[in-house]
Amino acid sequence: MTAPIRAAIAELEAAFPRERLTLDREKLEAYGRDESDLGTFPPDLAVAVESAEEVRTIFAVASRHRVPVIPVAARSGKSGGVLALSGGIAVSLERMNRILEISPEDLVARVQPGVVTGVLQAEVEKHGLFYPPDPNSLEMCTLGGNVAENAGGPRALKYGVTREYVLGLTAVIPTGEIVRVGKRSIKGVAGYDLTALLVGSEGTLAVVTEITLKLLPRPRHVSTALVVFGSVAAAARAVTKVLTAGILPRCLELLDDISLAAAAKTSPYKFPAGAGAALLVETDGNDEEGTFGEIVRLAEVVQEDAQGEVIVAQNESQRRDIWETRRYLSVNLKALHPMKLSEDIAVPRSRIPEMVERAKAVGARLGLVVATYGHAGDGNLHCNVLFDRAEERPRVDEAVGEILRIAVDLGGTITGEHGVGLAKRDFLEYEQGAEVVALERRLKAVFDPLGILNPGKMFPPA
Amino acid sequence: MTAPIRAAIAELEAAFPRERLTLDREKLEAYGRDESDLGTFPPDLAVAVESAEEVRTIFAVASRHRVPVIPVAARSGKSGGVLALSGGIAVSLERMNRILEISPEDLVARVQPGVVTGVLQAEVEKHGLFYPPDPNSLEMCTLGGNVAENAGGPRALKYGVTREYVLGLTAVIPTGEIVRVGKRSIKGVAGYDLTALLVGSEGTLAVVTEITLKLLPRPRHVSTALVVFGSVAAAARAVTKVLTAGILPRCLELLDDISLAAAAKTSPYKFPAGAGAALLVETDGNDEEGTFGEIVRLAEVVQEDAQGEVIVAQNESQRRDIWETRRYLSVNLKALHPMKLSEDIAVPRSRIPEMVERAKAVGARLGLVVATYGHAGDGNLHCNVLFDRAEERPRVDEAVGEILRIAVDLGGTITGEHGVGLAKRDFLEYEQGAEVVALERRLKAVFDPLGILNPGKMFPPA
Repeated sequence: MTAPIRAAIAELEAAFPRERLTLDREKLEAYGRDESDLGTFPPDLAVAVESAEEVRTIFAVASRHRVPVIPVAARSGKSGGVLALSGGIAVSLERMNRILEISPEDLVARVQPGVVTGVLQAEVEKHGLFYPPDPNSLEMCTLGGNVAENAGGPRALKYGVTREYVLGLTAVIPTGEIVRVGKRSIKGVAGYDLTALLVGSEGTLAVVTEITLKLLPRPRHVSTALVVFGSVAAAARAVTKVLTAGILPRCLELLDDISLAAAAKTSPYKFPAGAGAALLVETDGNDEEGTFGEIVRLAEVVQEDAQGEVIVAQNESQRRDIWETRRYLSVNLKALHPMKLSEDIAVPRSRIPEMVERAKAVGARLGLVVATYGHAGDGNLHCNVLFDRAEERPRVDEAVGEILRIAVDLGGTITGEHGVGLAKRDFLEYEQGAEVVALERRLKAVFDPLGILNPGKMFPPA
Repeated sequence: MTAPIRAAIAELEAAFPRERLTLDREKLEAYGRDESDLGTFPPDLAVAVESAEEVRTIFAVASRHRVPVIPVAARSGKSGGVLALSGGIAVSLERMNRILEISPEDLVARVQPGVVTGVLQAEVEKHGLFYPPDPNSLEMCTLGGNVAENAGGPRALKYGVTREYVLGLTAVIPTGEIVRVGKRSIKGVAGYDLTALLVGSEGTLAVVTEITLKLLPRPRHVSTALVVFGSVAAAARAVTKVLTAGILPRCLELLDDISLAAAAKTSPYKFPAGAGAALLVETDGNDEEGTFGEIVRLAEVVQEDAQGEVIVAQNESQRRDIWETRRYLSVNLKALHPMKLSEDIAVPRSRIPEMVERAKAVGARLGLVVATYGHAGDGNLHCNVLFDRAEERPRVDEAVGEILRIAVDLGGTITGEHGVGLAKRDFLEYEQGAEVVALERRLKAVFDPLGILNPGKMFPPA
């Protein structure tokens, strides 16, 4: 432990009640890990804050001693955003987990950043309301983390990502200001859109301490269908036909042949021989007939590209059966190969077949299996590189690098919803170019002139 | 004309073909006016650019001589964003009016900033597609201007504002970089959301030279209804009931009593005695029955708060009749009082009745009539201060100032869709606080360290 860290810890011990500080080595290890598989980088200290003012205190101490500050909540991120690369102070938001307000009249919720996404969803549903973003980890991830990463999920196709629901934020910036940005009204264009700038900034510009979210009325009916295709190309064709027919499902989940073969192991459905891809589709709405009618219309539109009959769930139990096909996919893939690195790219919709093919070819060339599934409606694909032994990791990293570059070359992005973090910081410039990255670094310096907030994330060290 | 301006003009005359420069006094006056009623501030020169590189040339010259650069397109703005407050060079984007691409497969369009919004809309409709933002000026305003102001319109309730449709931008920043920000894929979270930062930045951070827009399939059916209420409070109650019933109309336009009385002069409908407000409502969708069914359901929901029967258009001619009620509103109000200053505030939905009442009371106290109409679904209201003689203007400005402060006090904003510009720069701090405005000024300095781009807009002079 360096002298500045020791001095900072001493000051924070004086400023905070003892039970809010974590200094225990083992517990700190847990603060230095997430779902990224990038290793463990523990902070030197974790402070469980309860207010914006307390975050400001931490920034003051950290600025004085030039030590890193890393915001941390559920640690369910996939890009290494919470790893304390060079130690420092973890600002834990776990105690700031109160839902401050749910207003059915304004269709607005105000929450602290440590509220678990699924908890808010359950709570607003009691009022007949709906908070759409549904990252896979919604039972454990927090809204603060969702804001940091601009989290998506399957329903993003119809409902958009986290950014579309954040009306306003209270945030503490490293220079010590507590700022309220955005609004409570649905519309508003005063000043620069600092809210949008903070959403997705991956905890590198500010620590968010309160979030004002837009809610929707809860759609009362959902219809679900499963469609099997001979190839990803046929499935992608069907996706385009569905969307240009003016049908906007709430999700359009794609499985490629390997994913489908893995899913088949536990799916209640028998897929026809030659099944090369599948789409899992849901429509929703307030009118039961209309919602079911839309999925029937969708089934008609995709039928000519499909293999066999479109399976439309006729009741809740059939709906669950269809989701089983998707739910155990990750587990089933791991049964094929014990290790897996899941990538998160997005491409223009028309490039999906080419992306899937080329990712597979990259794997083949390197002796690795690549299974792709994801949110076909918005082109956000998870390319899973499967492998068996840790020693294969260098080849896996090579494959991942190539996959990211292909996504960019096809007009897409290195990350559709998981963020850059540590995982992809070396690829940001390939996507954005040196001038944009330089501009982003200058913007970061406005918020964080000393470079103490979450250093080493999003950008490679200068 | 100052020496630096003369020197800059000489350099630009050497760099550009003669026919692209405007030096004629009278023509320059036209470049120095918009729809804001804030006066005429002509630039010293206008240059009609054709590329990002040419914008860069202008920035280089302007930086050398420290003269202002003002981006200008259709001059249909309402906040004075294009006024050349202290002269300088207008960068006119009128020649950059090409639609570069419409991709039905990716649901994406690429356009130059000088494309008129209505022209793009008509063009994408030929492909069965839809570009939803519908600012009132859509037959004249340009997409570049829409991006600068983050323009809205009635359909924003269901479809969101311009920001929701801008996937990526090419922009030139005053320091000379030509940056491509954002993406062509629907999803993507790499780096900071510079696209969202530029959208709504009112031509103070960069000159946008290309826009990548998200498109939707065009909804094939629209249903329209008109509902009369005894009071704004009753209408607002109905709005809440509609939204919490899970009905999301594409617009929910409110008229208060004075607006309704003005509209009545030319409306084909006879409004019942005691009519104190009206809502004009539209639903849309792809299923004719479903769309009509939704408006019927809406009619049932609002009936108990309404006065008289809900008028549901049964055909296109009845639909046009309903819109007549709204269309001539501005003209009819001017017939009551020849002068009018239209404000553009937004409040949380639950505060609409209070906002309308208090705006009216401000008018009454100052001997002025305030008529409010606007987009009730998202709380965006246009409070029109009516007056008869130019000498009343100081009182009008006083009323406007009070109305803006009330909107902020109710949790709202000084501008829902028209922007800050020159018109409201003195009120920005009242809404955002000194620290946020200071932060915004520091961000501006990153893009524009010499302060040459559109000086005096959004923020008061330092």
